[in-house]
Amino acid sequence: MSQTPSRPLGVAMIGYAFMGRAHSQAWRTVGAAFDVPAVERRVVVGRDEQAVAEAAQHLGWQEHTTDWRAAITREDVDIVDICTPGFLHAEIAIAALEAGKHVLCEKPLANDAEEAAAMVEAARAARARGQVAALGHTYRRVPALRRARDLVAEGRLGRILQVRASYLQDWLVDENAGMSWRLRAETAGSGALGDIGSHAIDQIQFVTGQAVTAVRGRLATIVPERPGRDGPEQVTVDDAAWATLELDGGALASVEASRMATGRKNALELEVYGTQGALRFDLESLNELWFLDATVPVADQGFSRVLVTEPEHPYLEGWWPQGHMLGWENAFSNQARDLLLAVQAGDPAAFSPDFADGLALQRVLDAIIASDAVHGATVSL
Amino acid sequence: MSQTPSRPLGVAMIGYAFMGRAHSQAWRTVGAAFDVPAVERRVVVGRDEQAVAEAAQHLGWQEHTTDWRAAITREDVDIVDICTPGFLHAEIAIAALEAGKHVLCEKPLANDAEEAAAMVEAARAARARGQVAALGHTYRRVPALRRARDLVAEGRLGRILQVRASYLQDWLVDENAGMSWRLRAETAGSGALGDIGSHAIDQIQFVTGQAVTAVRGRLATIVPERPGRDGPEQVTVDDAAWATLELDGGALASVEASRMATGRKNALELEVYGTQGALRFDLESLNELWFLDATVPVADQGFSRVLVTEPEHPYLEGWWPQGHMLGWENAFSNQARDLLLAVQAGDPAAFSPDFADGLALQRVLDAIIASDAVHGATVSL
Amino acid sequence: MSQTPSRPLGVAMIGYAFMGRAHSQAWRTVGAAFDVPAVERRVVVGRDEQAVAEAAQHLGWQEHTTDWRAAITREDVDIVDICTPGFLHAEIAIAALEAGKHVLCEKPLANDAEEAAAMVEAARAARARGQVAALGHTYRRVPALRRARDLVAEGRLGRILQVRASYLQDWLVDENAGMSWRLRAETAGSGALGDIGSHAIDQIQFVTGQAVTAVRGRLATIVPERPGRDGPEQVTVDDAAWATLELDGGALASVEASRMATGRKNALELEVYGTQGALRFDLESLNELWFLDATVPVADQGFSRVLVTEPEHPYLEGWWPQGHMLGWENAFSNQARDLLLAVQAGDPAAFSPDFADGLALQRVLDAIIASDAVHGATVSL
Amino acid sequence: MSQTPSRPLGVAMIGYAFMGRAHSQAWRTVGAAFDVPAVERRVVVGRDEQAVAEAAQHLGWQEHTTDWRAAITREDVDIVDICTPGFLHAEIAIAALEAGKHVLCEKPLANDAEEAAAMVEAARAARARGQVAALGHTYRRVPALRRARDLVAEGRLGRILQVRASYLQDWLVDENAGMSWRLRAETAGSGALGDIGSHAIDQIQFVTGQAVTAVRGRLATIVPERPGRDGPEQVTVDDAAWATLELDGGALASVEASRMATGRKNALELEVYGTQGALRFDLESLNELWFLDATVPVADQGFSRVLVTEPEHPYLEGWWPQGHMLGWENAFSNQARDLLLAVQAGDPAAFSPDFADGLALQRVLDAIIASDAVHGATVSL
Repeated sequence: MSQTPSRPLGVAMIGYAFMGRAHSQAWRTVGAAFDVPAVERRVVVGRDEQAVAEAAQHLGWQEHTTDWRAAITREDVDIVDICTPGFLHAEIAIAALEAGKHVLCEKPLANDAEEAAAMVEAARAARARGQVAALGHTYRRVPALRRARDLVAEGRLGRILQVRASYLQDWLVDENAGMSWRLRAETAGSGALGDIGSHAIDQIQFVTGQAVTAVRGRLATIVPERPGRDGPEQVTVDDAAWATLELDGGALASVEASRMATGRKNALELEVYGTQGALRFDLESLNELWFLDATVPVADQGFSRVLVTEPEHPYLEGWWPQGHMLGWENAFSNQARDLLLAVQAGDPAAFSPDFADGLALQRVLDAIIASDAVHGATVSL
Repeated sequence: MSQTPSRPLGVAMIGYAFMGRAHSQAWRTVGAAFDVPAVERRVVVGRDEQAVAEAAQHLGWQEHTTDWRAAITREDVDIVDICTPGFLHAEIAIAALEAGKHVLCEKPLANDAEEAAAMVEAARAARARGQVAALGHTYRRVPALRRARDLVAEGRLGRILQVRASYLQDWLVDENAGMSWRLRAETAGSGALGDIGSHAIDQIQFVTGQAVTAVRGRLATIVPERPGRDGPEQVTVDDAAWATLELDGGALASVEASRMATGRKNALELEVYGTQGALRFDLESLNELWFLDATVPVADQGFSRVLVTEPEHPYLEGWWPQGHMLGWENAFSNQARDLLLAVQAGDPAAFSPDFADGLALQRVLDAIIASDAVHGATVSL
Repeated sequence: MSQTPSRPLGVAMIGYAFMGRAHSQAWRTVGAAFDVPAVERRVVVGRDEQAVAEAAQHLGWQEHTTDWRAAITREDVDIVDICTPGFLHAEIAIAALEAGKHVLCEKPLANDAEEAAAMVEAARAARARGQVAALGHTYRRVPALRRARDLVAEGRLGRILQVRASYLQDWLVDENAGMSWRLRAETAGSGALGDIGSHAIDQIQFVTGQAVTAVRGRLATIVPERPGRDGPEQVTVDDAAWATLELDGGALASVEASRMATGRKNALELEVYGTQGALRFDLESLNELWFLDATVPVADQGFSRVLVTEPEHPYLEGWWPQGHMLGWENAFSNQARDLLLAVQAGDPAAFSPDFADGLALQRVLDAIIASDAVHGATVSL
Repeated sequence: MSQTPSRPLGVAMIGYAFMGRAHSQAWRTVGAAFDVPAVERRVVVGRDEQAVAEAAQHLGWQEHTTDWRAAITREDVDIVDICTPGFLHAEIAIAALEAGKHVLCEKPLANDAEEAAAMVEAARAARARGQVAALGHTYRRVPALRRARDLVAEGRLGRILQVRASYLQDWLVDENAGMSWRLRAETAGSGALGDIGSHAIDQIQFVTGQAVTAVRGRLATIVPERPGRDGPEQVTVDDAAWATLELDGGALASVEASRMATGRKNALELEVYGTQGALRFDLESLNELWFLDATVPVADQGFSRVLVTEPEHPYLEGWWPQGHMLGWENAFSNQARDLLLAVQAGDPAAFSPDFADGLALQRVLDAIIASDAVHGATVSL
């Protein structure tokens, strides 16, 4: 099953909202950008018959269905792409892996560690059969962040001393914005920490190549009550979170996530400081990587604004000539490329992050929550 | 013929190099982004049989051919998309218009004003038949530049006093880079002025809504000789150009184009100064529009970095939630959207720029060249 | 004694190193910039006779001495300006206040809370006699930061939700940089937290007008051992520190201080997020205040780069026409201005921060250290 | 007379308005910043007895007078510092030089080339006697611009290809701002070109080390009529100007000056492009020099934001530790330093620019005006 078929690879996508639209764009464009196996958008799955039919037409899927179990076992489906809310990830992913399919699962891996552990188990078994179980931390495929990782891996920053990461948005600044499932613990799991803080922590680990070993955390619900259908309701997840992290390579990191940062639209910022250099990045300027080489004479040192759009840069072979800016969506095509190449190679290890990485990240988030529960004291992993 | 058919609209694309790739991406994605008539990539045309076959497969065109005349007269083709070098534009565009097709022609309209005038004539006749003849000055569809135009049109800047535009690249800084057809007058027409300066001048006119009435110009060939196959050759086009422009609304503009600007990758910069406000833009940060509102108290005045990614902004209804950056390629999808809507509406006037705008721009470029020929003295249009 | 004398006010300055040079510049220039009482640099005090003599000549002090007790009791001295290391502040300040002098004491107020409390007591008694006891948190007089505070106080940001502050330098990145008194707990008190983190925390409280009520903290010594005279020595203070702070107005703040931030030279950064607006500031661009007004239509919202050099801005009446940038040193002259005006008015309350503010800040720093000692758990004030 | 006296050097300053205030600050602070001969502010000269008396007190001059001829011949005066409007420069400077004094003359050297030539003649004679005749193009002493010049001189940019300079302000955007002497040709000589464009052109020549050999220019009066005392009056100088310049080293430059650039406060911008590197600078961020080293691998290339505040940087030995920003005024102290050192060394050639440089610059400005008079055609120097 995990042999690449001679026909084009078939994808079944579960869910077609924001993430489904982005993934559709990736499947639509990856073949024109990169030299990858042919891929077809076979079937899209949703709960509402009419809505999923419209989505199929709009997003260019050959078929649609409301029966995800049927979709994931079709013989002409090779890859199951899970874009549902997190609480549905485990059931679908495990079933798809057991059906012998490659899986791409949007982040977060699951809403809790128990589910996540079961997914990891299923992925381990599937991996032995040559199946890829991929986790969609797409920002790892933003060229500038991949370039950042490469610079660290090549030793250009020396020993990493300290990292600063933050993910700031303003989506909840309006105190009169109403309740939603994202603001309830039972449906959302966690708030800013899990939804966007997770990206920041993933980048810390990805770019430095170091794993978190202990944390101190604080969660806050700055607006604790919001209008519900029947009057005011309690917000039961965090809208801002902070943590400091100890990394196994000796570096220290701070991370901050907030949806109360007025005027910050989608600011995933990363700063990495090493003995021989430093890096800065902001997702709002995603083509730019700021690199300081501390080995040049001090009179010439400064952060250089490198436009990561050169042929020499990661993933740029698929896109446009130098100086032509990429957008947020291109990272999804880059991710699809890497997945298709891993499938083609029959090498699950060629794609990361995998489900085990997702579980490890979930444990960091859980540790931050546990630390907050003891008023911020250290929790080790 | 110019009635929108009940089947999906069919496109024939002539040329499949850099611009052909970008246009293919637009046709591929426009339907998923916007509510437009369905469109199909029917046939791609190129001179080399094998290469065009590969391009068709890679870029997702249903068929390919080396016979552009056959392609543009197919009954299942409604739109002819011309992505060839400029010297082929006139012949193909006129034939396609005469065949009753809508035409999208990449800039520059033509290599000289005579050809351009013939194209305008053909477009005028076609327009009476309901056909759209569109010119691909795609940057008009970068959301931030469209927003800039709207702010000026709404009077937010007051009376426009002065404009500064420049387009700086570094593609020719290497003095040992060899000769190419782009560096010979007989094949390229002009150099930096026509290739990139034209974008800057188009933006000056687009954003201000004012037309150039007189110019003073200077052209330069900073590296006059480059290695050719048989030894050094003369570069016969400009690699840098400057002009000042008088506009019919009373504003003055300066424009500068260069391929000798070391380290500037694709810097189309625009600054517009009015009695009540000002704007700044740089294509290297294409999601940002810097707006200064001079009507607020002076203690609060400053250029605001507006991320043009809000639902309220032009074209954003088709893309991602606020704060998710767009790339260079999205402007091509926006252009395809506007073309398809004009076709659907049967309203050629709904799309601009048209061929007449292209001719008018060509006349400005010619005037700058003429001014340089008289050592920089004023040439009126 | 606290009556303003008819002769020029006389200053005695104790210490003439980095801070003494900056204070001298302030006393030298304040009278030319502002309409303040005349002031004369009477006497400078140091421990080394020859060095202080040279300093007096170089920095323009009329006399010099090695006897600070004699200097602070001179009848022609009205203001005692304490620029010594922190462990000498208490003794000198208390003596000067008891001698009836106005006192300007560099930060930190003292090396520990006990000394600080004694200084507050002395200041309280002196204040009843009309004497000013001023603490030199000079960054409060950077015009952009003062403007930030005013915007918050005027309600332009609405209710403050969240604050981010950091002070990043790279002065200790070199692992082979040797030991110094600043790296030993017994002489320095604390490290990055006390030396630069204190500035960041002072700004959080100053700009928001809110006081810290509880903290969670972490200290680190990223390079724990450095070359000493007789081989490796232990570094016994922090070189990086992090904390989250609860403020009495309901806002939450994070603060980070580091001397291990490669390539960051003197980056005191502040971000303030409120329900109706937001602010950003960086001391490396000290003439700029970035202000976002969230009450304008969302399509126009963005952080505005306000150059705080207009006549309408704080302290600018003393300096240059609009657009002429100020430097770090000007804040010291602004501080001297405010001190002289408070002295002239006979109104000690007209100057802040005072010694009590310094003690309150010291208690916040102590709470962060105490929190770190309990592995990061909350410590209330 | 040109021997440095054993007593402190005495300065007589003529004029005490904006420039007089800045020069006073320089004389006041230079001795504390740098190791230079002692200098005393002997006498300040103005036309109004009471006003000059107040200025003397406020700015710290020992004496004042309304008789400049008496002031410049005093035996205890060694340096005559001319801060008057330009039309008075020639008479005073020539008299001072003939009286054996060193002279520092604010820019512009004179209002016309004839006066300037006479000044050059007087300076040449004085120079033979060891007297310094210095021209106050102070921006040459902004550390970042001096560093820029050094990088070019050291060959770090390779061969200079192209330069872009502009000086943009918004001081005349308000169409209802009234007439003043600055807007009349007979009093001001020229407008934006002479007042601020001259700075931009001086920087082009200073940083590249190349002299202008030919120009094409355009002048404009965007607001041609303004309210006068007795109704509308004609503005008879330019409020915006543009030129392209040929340089004797083969580079081409563009320059633009405007007082109609809404929201631009004091934006002297410079861009220098060479075969091996590039530089960018903006006076509104005067501590920053953006340097691109085109010899590093392309994947790492970008403009580096170098904070020119390191001990290794020009003039920084006199100021504060790294990372402490300088302001506009510090350049005046740097200028005073260089003048005093030239005086001390008895070496007039040690200071540049001199009067001949001022005359050369005036000729460039005149050529631009002459070019505009022939509708922009080339005028050679």
